[in-house]
Amino acid sequence: MCGTDLHIYKWDEWAAGRFKAPMTFGHEFCGEVVACGDEVDNVQVGDYVTAETHVICHTCYQCRTGQGHVCENVSILGIDRPGIFADYAVIPGENAWKTDRRFPPEIATLQEPFGNAVHTALTGRITAKSVLVTGCGPLGLFCVALSKFAGASEVTQLRRELAKKVGATAVFDPLKDDVAAEVRRLTHGEGVDVLLETAGAPTAIETGFKCLKYAGRASLIGLPSKPFPFDFTDQIIFKGATVIGISGREMFETWYSTRALLDGGLDLSPIITHKLPLEEFEKAFDLIGSGQCGKIVFKVAPPEAGGVR
Amino acid sequence: MCGTDLHIYKWDEWAAGRFKAPMTFGHEFCGEVVACGDEVDNVQVGDYVTAETHVICHTCYQCRTGQGHVCENVSILGIDRPGIFADYAVIPGENAWKTDRRFPPEIATLQEPFGNAVHTALTGRITAKSVLVTGCGPLGLFCVALSKFAGASEVTQLRRELAKKVGATAVFDPLKDDVAAEVRRLTHGEGVDVLLETAGAPTAIETGFKCLKYAGRASLIGLPSKPFPFDFTDQIIFKGATVIGISGREMFETWYSTRALLDGGLDLSPIITHKLPLEEFEKAFDLIGSGQCGKIVFKVAPPEAGGVR
Amino acid sequence: MCGTDLHIYKWDEWAAGRFKAPMTFGHEFCGEVVACGDEVDNVQVGDYVTAETHVICHTCYQCRTGQGHVCENVSILGIDRPGIFADYAVIPGENAWKTDRRFPPEIATLQEPFGNAVHTALTGRITAKSVLVTGCGPLGLFCVALSKFAGASEVTQLRRELAKKVGATAVFDPLKDDVAAEVRRLTHGEGVDVLLETAGAPTAIETGFKCLKYAGRASLIGLPSKPFPFDFTDQIIFKGATVIGISGREMFETWYSTRALLDGGLDLSPIITHKLPLEEFEKAFDLIGSGQCGKIVFKVAPPEAGGVR
Amino acid sequence: MCGTDLHIYKWDEWAAGRFKAPMTFGHEFCGEVVACGDEVDNVQVGDYVTAETHVICHTCYQCRTGQGHVCENVSILGIDRPGIFADYAVIPGENAWKTDRRFPPEIATLQEPFGNAVHTALTGRITAKSVLVTGCGPLGLFCVALSKFAGASEVTQLRRELAKKVGATAVFDPLKDDVAAEVRRLTHGEGVDVLLETAGAPTAIETGFKCLKYAGRASLIGLPSKPFPFDFTDQIIFKGATVIGISGREMFETWYSTRALLDGGLDLSPIITHKLPLEEFEKAFDLIGSGQCGKIVFKVAPPEAGGVR
Repeated sequence: MCGTDLHIYKWDEWAAGRFKAPMTFGHEFCGEVVACGDEVDNVQVGDYVTAETHVICHTCYQCRTGQGHVCENVSILGIDRPGIFADYAVIPGENAWKTDRRFPPEIATLQEPFGNAVHTALTGRITAKSVLVTGCGPLGLFCVALSKFAGASEVTQLRRELAKKVGATAVFDPLKDDVAAEVRRLTHGEGVDVLLETAGAPTAIETGFKCLKYAGRASLIGLPSKPFPFDFTDQIIFKGATVIGISGREMFETWYSTRALLDGGLDLSPIITHKLPLEEFEKAFDLIGSGQCGKIVFKVAPPEAGGVR
Repeated sequence: MCGTDLHIYKWDEWAAGRFKAPMTFGHEFCGEVVACGDEVDNVQVGDYVTAETHVICHTCYQCRTGQGHVCENVSILGIDRPGIFADYAVIPGENAWKTDRRFPPEIATLQEPFGNAVHTALTGRITAKSVLVTGCGPLGLFCVALSKFAGASEVTQLRRELAKKVGATAVFDPLKDDVAAEVRRLTHGEGVDVLLETAGAPTAIETGFKCLKYAGRASLIGLPSKPFPFDFTDQIIFKGATVIGISGREMFETWYSTRALLDGGLDLSPIITHKLPLEEFEKAFDLIGSGQCGKIVFKVAPPEAGGVR
Repeated sequence: MCGTDLHIYKWDEWAAGRFKAPMTFGHEFCGEVVACGDEVDNVQVGDYVTAETHVICHTCYQCRTGQGHVCENVSILGIDRPGIFADYAVIPGENAWKTDRRFPPEIATLQEPFGNAVHTALTGRITAKSVLVTGCGPLGLFCVALSKFAGASEVTQLRRELAKKVGATAVFDPLKDDVAAEVRRLTHGEGVDVLLETAGAPTAIETGFKCLKYAGRASLIGLPSKPFPFDFTDQIIFKGATVIGISGREMFETWYSTRALLDGGLDLSPIITHKLPLEEFEKAFDLIGSGQCGKIVFKVAPPEAGGVR
Repeated sequence: MCGTDLHIYKWDEWAAGRFKAPMTFGHEFCGEVVACGDEVDNVQVGDYVTAETHVICHTCYQCRTGQGHVCENVSILGIDRPGIFADYAVIPGENAWKTDRRFPPEIATLQEPFGNAVHTALTGRITAKSVLVTGCGPLGLFCVALSKFAGASEVTQLRRELAKKVGATAVFDPLKDDVAAEVRRLTHGEGVDVLLETAGAPTAIETGFKCLKYAGRASLIGLPSKPFPFDFTDQIIFKGATVIGISGREMFETWYSTRALLDGGLDLSPIITHKLPLEEFEKAFDLIGSGQCGKIVFKVAPPEAGGVR
């Protein structure tokens, strides 16, 4: 499950404006290839796959220059085209990503959302750098785990003790702590080298930038729901900061990196807090709405086995 | 003259909060070295020099990693320490920048503000890229001239016909034109590769980002006077944009670049619209306040010649 | 005509080992689209096109990460698959590059070889940098013209007065001049920031590196015919140099850049020294073998017009 | 001890040509500050320090653009100026690097040579990349340990089982194994993303490049003793490789990174195979000459304690 699915389920303003009903939703999955078109040459029937969920046009400037992740004509699984909360799903061959069977389904399916974190974190160096992750959902936790795995020196996070379990060296509560002061104290008075912003809340973004070192890097993937007042002068310009907007996963550099990280031993399992049968989807939506969870994974039986498990 | 000088002259809110009176102001200049301290080894008496106006600490993280332009302990000529609207000025030896006598004083003195434009434009590639410059003061004009000189394909600018004189291929009036549509039309429907934002006005920043291509680069040096509402989601994050805050000049990479550009034949003289004797400073401040000028240069006689010329 | 064609024509050791006869050779061209496959969506019948000559696999690591120019399974027009010294040629739709009719055929056809120079030069910054181009064939001349257009400060070249016509600020004769000393003299004693090596001759490569500044960049596209003794210690390691191997054109970033440079006014016509009817191919091969030419372009009449013109 | 010290001790051709006798040699150390000049502001008496061993001029192009590690006028401790095999040593204040007392002397003193590895490895991304380290001395072992710590997926090394202890996933013997084939097998048939070359032997460099992926990165710090035949065409140019020469440590970015890595928990102690009293220097030179050791550290008592310990 992805937070996007909750927006659709609740049919909020964003969903009503963006989602084209009737449509099968859901986009994070893994499964087995049961049929291939004639021109598919990177996977075959029987392969265990997950998928890049952005279907791109291959003719726009971005696509033709290796930047398909910001294709202007993108069509997204489960939003613009039928998704994967279904017995079978159809995807372009090139979007399929073959996965080693040694990774169980709950890890295989994480590669797409984890890829967002990989793209966010690896747009600059994190090794030997101090990192602040804002946002305490799965994406934030992925960023913490990855930063620690990549040899970041200090990895701080806002609000969530679970972050410590996956590698955070410190966690602050913005309601109680003077976060900017605490972060400076941990970083020789300099602020963090890197901000990985996954929350999208204006206060998180502001706090994150206040903690950022002069000439630091901020990679932003959390989506503010609307414009909000921001101090460009002090937080970006005088600071000489570099700010990078993150959309999707680099196709397919991010996927190779994701594979390499799993091969190298990065363990994402602590971030999965719930594995539920698909029938309990209502409980899953309640959980994700409450924020009292990490990643929720549905267990689904193959159709021939009689449906959901 | 620099726009900063106008803030001080008018004693606005910024000046009252930042400037430490009594203090000699003014920071853009050229002149001759009349005396050197014992340890100065990069210039000598008689040299024709201009100067980097940021005096840096050499001990903070930024200074020790080649990023002195964002030194946290910076002290600026004419703001934090005595400036150059004076018969003589004292600067650290390392800040002096020796200049070839073949460049007349009005060009020699431009190297500092032009350096801001060089730093802004060259934080990424402009050669063979389409560029939009927002802001029509000297800094914007420098960016236009430099972009053209560096082989940018399309150089568009807002509001100012003077921009065409220094190389703009198109100029739009945001009050009359649908700028985003016009820019797309000029750029194969894609938007510009590069935004060089020198205005600092919220509407200029918004318009600039709307014209920016997916995965484009925005370098920001114009200073908004206060926080303003900005749409991070559509203009930075979904767009996969890279945003770079620009402060000062890279020390001294920018200065070598500036020298190389002048050596290579870049002509900045069309941007100087007025050369006034120093006595006419009131007229100069009126002109700069009205925006009806490019760069204004004061002509000053050396003290031994009896004062201002 | 390309130097590669001469190797094939003379059937030298390289050609005998690499070229798969019988095969139509030739790969630089422009022409009109006379038919399109069903899935071609970037060009249509009647379009005026040239083409990227590397046909790539789209499934290897390099292809899937935006680096198709080093596809391990590349198939090259006129070498591995039928080329364009023919009435008609067949190319994959994606390789076609639509060109504006305002560019005459002799310029349109240059985009592929010029693209090699664009790729070579733009792997780093050349604006406001000093550049040494080694190699005096068309590729070297393209590099000179591009460096000048992109605002390089000093553009030096070895051996060829023609280089001055397209922008070189100095030309040295390695048989008579102490090139390293001359280059240092021109560059404030520092050496050049950038070496663009197009000759492939060991002496040119050695001389080029000797002229390179500490921490400079060398982009190499000239192909040495066999291994030769090179001083890594002094020329790369102690110097802290960055060396970049250049193969083909970035697909299709280089093509967009090439288009932008032509749109921006870069004039390649002085580099075309001969326009010959196709019947005079023997003369062309003699000329290219002698080195007494820039680029040679064949003029060909469309088949319906009765053959070569 | 550093390998450089062995060259001086044996008085080989390099030493005779480079070293200026009589001179105190030795340059890797840690110690306590016993006196400071008036202008020293980054350390004080009593501080526990190690030092950057390159003393730079601050006036050349490289120094003035944040690239002091390739200062053309560098003066090196223990080679060009008196070193540290002495009771007391004098260094410029800025070269001193304050170290936390929680690191014992044998780790504190490693920061300089380890910094070479940090500089080598971090000139590009290693996180989620496959890495081949050639060279099995301390520098190679540092590179292995760092690559593993930074989340590289596969870290292969030539010749040395000790490498496995510090994180190598595979070690090959070039005399018995077909290294290029083995490396391809481990890397999905693609070759390694990154080559960290610390050996300097022509065969190691050749093997390393043969294992390198198309468009891969090779950072070279091992010093070949003389020019040797190298195949630029196949190993750099067609491959589209990026090759980076590494000299010294970036001043002081590398030092901050080194500190951050130690703070983050990277353990270098397995690489120290011998701790000897200074009297046993002959044994140490024999060991380092035989290659049957990792890093050798001398234990020295402070002068007031009666000499070496």
